[in-house]
Amino acid sequence: MATRGRDPQQLVDAARGGDRAALARALTLVEEGGAPAREVGRFAFGHGGSAYTVGITGAPGAGKSTLTNALIAEVRAAGQEVAVLAIDPSSPFSGGAILGDRVRMQDHALDPGVFIRSMATRGHLGGLSLATPQAIRVLDAAAKPWVLVETVGVGQVEVEIAGSADTTVVVVNPGWGDAVQANKAGLMEIADLFVINKADRAGAGETRRDLELMLELSNLGSWRPPIIETVAVQSKGVDDLWRAIGEHRAHIESTGLLAERRARRLRDELRSIVLYRLEEKALSLTSGAAFERLHADVVARRIDPYSAADEIIRALTA
Amino acid sequence: MATRGRDPQQLVDAARGGDRAALARALTLVEEGGAPAREVGRFAFGHGGSAYTVGITGAPGAGKSTLTNALIAEVRAAGQEVAVLAIDPSSPFSGGAILGDRVRMQDHALDPGVFIRSMATRGHLGGLSLATPQAIRVLDAAAKPWVLVETVGVGQVEVEIAGSADTTVVVVNPGWGDAVQANKAGLMEIADLFVINKADRAGAGETRRDLELMLELSNLGSWRPPIIETVAVQSKGVDDLWRAIGEHRAHIESTGLLAERRARRLRDELRSIVLYRLEEKALSLTSGAAFERLHADVVARRIDPYSAADEIIRALTA
Repeated sequence: MATRGRDPQQLVDAARGGDRAALARALTLVEEGGAPAREVGRFAFGHGGSAYTVGITGAPGAGKSTLTNALIAEVRAAGQEVAVLAIDPSSPFSGGAILGDRVRMQDHALDPGVFIRSMATRGHLGGLSLATPQAIRVLDAAAKPWVLVETVGVGQVEVEIAGSADTTVVVVNPGWGDAVQANKAGLMEIADLFVINKADRAGAGETRRDLELMLELSNLGSWRPPIIETVAVQSKGVDDLWRAIGEHRAHIESTGLLAERRARRLRDELRSIVLYRLEEKALSLTSGAAFERLHADVVARRIDPYSAADEIIRALTA
Repeated sequence: MATRGRDPQQLVDAARGGDRAALARALTLVEEGGAPAREVGRFAFGHGGSAYTVGITGAPGAGKSTLTNALIAEVRAAGQEVAVLAIDPSSPFSGGAILGDRVRMQDHALDPGVFIRSMATRGHLGGLSLATPQAIRVLDAAAKPWVLVETVGVGQVEVEIAGSADTTVVVVNPGWGDAVQANKAGLMEIADLFVINKADRAGAGETRRDLELMLELSNLGSWRPPIIETVAVQSKGVDDLWRAIGEHRAHIESTGLLAERRARRLRDELRSIVLYRLEEKALSLTSGAAFERLHADVVARRIDPYSAADEIIRALTA
C-alpha cells in the first residue's frame, strides 16, 4: 500500500487518484516543512493549474467559519467539489487534526466532495506564508476546483495569505467602524468583496456607509468591491456571496487580471523562498569554529564587524 | 580644511582630535548608511574601547528626555564628558537636526563637554539596529567616556537598542501597572535599573510593589535591579540614579559580566550584518533579466518555485 508511506511522489499520485488519506498525508508533509515538503510541492506543481482560490479573512468572531461552512453548501449545490484550508498562525502545529472551531464545518464531514484541513506550522523559517501556496498546490493537483482559504486572525501573515487568493473576501460585522478603520489600508488593499456578516444586528447600515466611504476614497481599478450582507448562521445572503465570487472570477478571467495576479504571486513567492534560503544560510554561517574564531578577532578588535561579515559572506560564495 | 569634506578617515581623525563639526558629519555618514558608514565605523573601531554606554528606555511621556537632561548634569558634576544619542525609529531621517523634544537638553547646548545627537534613518535595510552601534563606535573613538542612548518609543527595535547598552535603565511612571505588565517580558529581560519617574504623583508605591513582585517572580542573576524614584523636572533622585549606574558598572566590571555582555553584543551584531548583507543579495538576485526568465518559466510551469530558487542561489555562489 503505497499511500500508507510517506514517499512524496507516491502520495501526490495517490491524492490525484482520489485517495483522501494520501492527500491528508501529503499536506502533513507540507506542514512539517523541509525537503519532503519541497518534493510534494514539486510533484504537485506539475499537475495543477485549474483550482480557483478564495481567501476569507476578518477579525476573530466575525463568523468566518460559519460563513465558510455556508459557502461550502453553495459550492456543492452548484455541483462542484471544494477544499477548505483553515490557516491559524497562532496555533501550534496541528498535525492534521481538525481544530475545535472547525466543528461548524462538520456539516460536510461525510460529503466526499468536501475536503477540510487545518494548517499550522512549528514556526520554522518561512512558516505559513510559504507553506500555504504549497498546500494549495497539492489540493490543485488533487483536482479540487475550488479551494477556500480561511485565515483565523487579522495579523500581517493572515492578511498576506488571504490576500494572495484569486478572490479575497473580507468579513466585517455591524458596529465595526473602528475595527475597519484600524485595518483600513491593509484590508482595502486585498478586498475584492466585502461581507457584512451578522447583518441582522444593529449598525449594518452604518458599517455599509463606512465601507462605501472607504471605497470612495480609494483608487479603485476596473473592479469595485461589492458589499454583501449575510447572516451566515441562517445561510442568508450566502447565495449573493457565491454569485459575487463568480462575477469577480469572470471579471478577472476576462480582463487578464487573473493571469497577472497569479504571475505576481509566483514572483513574490520566488523572492520569499530565496530570502528564506539565504536566512538559513546566515544561520549556518554564524555558528561553528570558523565563526567563533572571527568573533574572537572582533572582540579583540583585530577586525571590525563589517570586515568580519565580509569574510563570512566570502565563505558562502567560495 | 579636511574636516569640511566627507572623507571617512579624515572625519574620524578630526573627531578624535576634538572637532565637533567633524564628529557630527561622521555621524551623518553613519546615519546615511552604505559604504561611507562602514568606513567610518571601521576607522572608529580601531580607536575605541573605553566608552561606557547607558541605555534609557520607556514609554513615550515617561520623561526620558528630562531624565537624560538631569543625568547629563550629574555626569558633568562628576567632571566627566558625556555624549547623548537620541534614537527615534518613528521619525524620518533627521540629517543631524535636533528634534523638537530634544529642547529640554538644551540646558547643556553651550557646554563643550556635552555632545547631543538625534538619529533616525531612511528606513534602509538594517536600519537603526545596525546604525546605533556604529554611531556609538564613533563617539567612543572621539573619547567620550559616557554615551547615553535614549530611545524614544518602546517598540521592539527601541527595546533592542536600549537593551544592548552596558547598563540599561527602564523608566516607568506611577500608575503604569498595566503598561508594565504588557511589556513585562521584554522590559524584565533588559532592565539593569528601574526608574519610577514623576514619583511625586499618586501610585508610586503601588508601581514599586508591582516591579518588586515582577522581580520576585524572575530568575535574577547576580544583580538585582534596584528601583529608583525620581522627579526629573526637579532633578530629584537623579543623584541616586547616577550612583546606581556606578554600582551596576562596578558590579559587571568586577564579575567579568561587562566583557561577556560586550562579546555577546558583537556576536549578535555580526549575525545581523551577515543577514542584512544576504538580504541585500536576495534583493539584487530577484531582479534583472535572469530572474525574469526564471519567473516566466515558473509561470509557465516549466519549473517549480523551489527549484527556481535553487538556480538563483546557485548564481550567488558561482
